[in-house]
Amino acid sequence: SGQTLPETDFSARLRFLSEADQLKSVLRASKIADGSRHENSAEHSWHIMLYAWVLAEHSSTNIAPDRVLAMLLLHDLVEIDAGDVPIHTALAAADLARIAAAEQAAAQRLFGMLPEAQARDFLALWDEFEANNTPDAIFAKAIDRVQPILLNLANGGGSWVDYNVTLPQLDTRVGAKVARGAPLVWDHIRRLLTPWFTAQGRI
Amino acid sequence: SGQTLPETDFSARLRFLSEADQLKSVLRASKIADGSRHENSAEHSWHIMLYAWVLAEHSSTNIAPDRVLAMLLLHDLVEIDAGDVPIHTALAAADLARIAAAEQAAAQRLFGMLPEAQARDFLALWDEFEANNTPDAIFAKAIDRVQPILLNLANGGGSWVDYNVTLPQLDTRVGAKVARGAPLVWDHIRRLLTPWFTAQGRI
Ligand SMILES: [Ca+2]
Repeated sequence: SGQTLPETDFSARLRFLSEADQLKSVLRASKIADGSRHENSAEHSWHIMLYAWVLAEHSSTNIAPDRVLAMLLLHDLVEIDAGDVPIHTALAAADLARIAAAEQAAAQRLFGMLPEAQARDFLALWDEFEANNTPDAIFAKAIDRVQPILLNLANGGGSWVDYNVTLPQLDTRVGAKVARGAPLVWDHIRRLLTPWFTAQGRI
Repeated sequence: SGQTLPETDFSARLRFLSEADQLKSVLRASKIADGSRHENSAEHSWHIMLYAWVLAEHSSTNIAPDRVLAMLLLHDLVEIDAGDVPIHTALAAADLARIAAAEQAAAQRLFGMLPEAQARDFLALWDEFEANNTPDAIFAKAIDRVQPILLNLANGGGSWVDYNVTLPQLDTRVGAKVARGAPLVWDHIRRLLTPWFTAQGRI
């Protein structure tokens, strides 16, 4: 395989990997646990892969942890072009459609930098994650929603304060997705976050 | 599995995942590609996982990409206690032994936060990476050394300038490890970096 790989394929891969570096400059709504700065999407991707690996046995269905890892490794790259969309922003249907189109175009451009077979594999994995219909994707999406909760709890509310979020809103926007992929994780985490929302009168 | 997991195991996992957040504050010698700031070890870990996934077919031996990904996911966590050791620091044997002991203690403390079976699995994977004796570990180590080269090339020399590195030093400290796990990758990359070292008179 590697012995006969054309130089141009290797160069294409390096260009893709250099382009990917920009994910380290995409800032998210959440702050890191100590509250000192906003989290970027590259370190977030690392952290949720660790969450997925550590919590894999809590999936509600049979998953392939290595496929979940690969999905989470790739899932945020589209933000290099399309930006991060904070989950607690109120968006009209037209905005959602515009964002979905921008992310689809970003996936085509970025994964399209790779040699053809690899581009196809990466796009398929990203599409599967976005479609949220397979056990691996459902668990990956659940985990992606869990990690910011723990960050917000660690630093005094974080994006819940900035976006003025109530517990019923969190149940709808986050809880439903987490519970679908990892119901016991949601049970546990909801008990952890109730005191904060109660103390803040956000229930 | 998840249905019967004791509450304490789940809590232990969450504490480990929160502790891991500190890797986002461990700064490395390399800067990100645009040169604007130093890279942290969490986003570095994400980036080299992407490198490993994209370049997997260039391994000199048969590897299991999912095991390589898991190794790279975990490999830098010890830096939370032991710090990052820039590869171009000149170190005496006694310093190396002290660092190795600090990293071993860090692995015991951090992975020891997890439920017992999982702690054992994570420690075994970290030990395998450090021992650098299996195909998966050799490829993972190679990839860990490749990524900073591309960052330095992108931002005008980076840590090669800061540590006054010559091409023969890079061959010894980095090239040998990369060539062991991915010889064609090293061939290609060495051609890319020769012009910079030549222009700088560092050959
Ligand atoms: Ca390292």
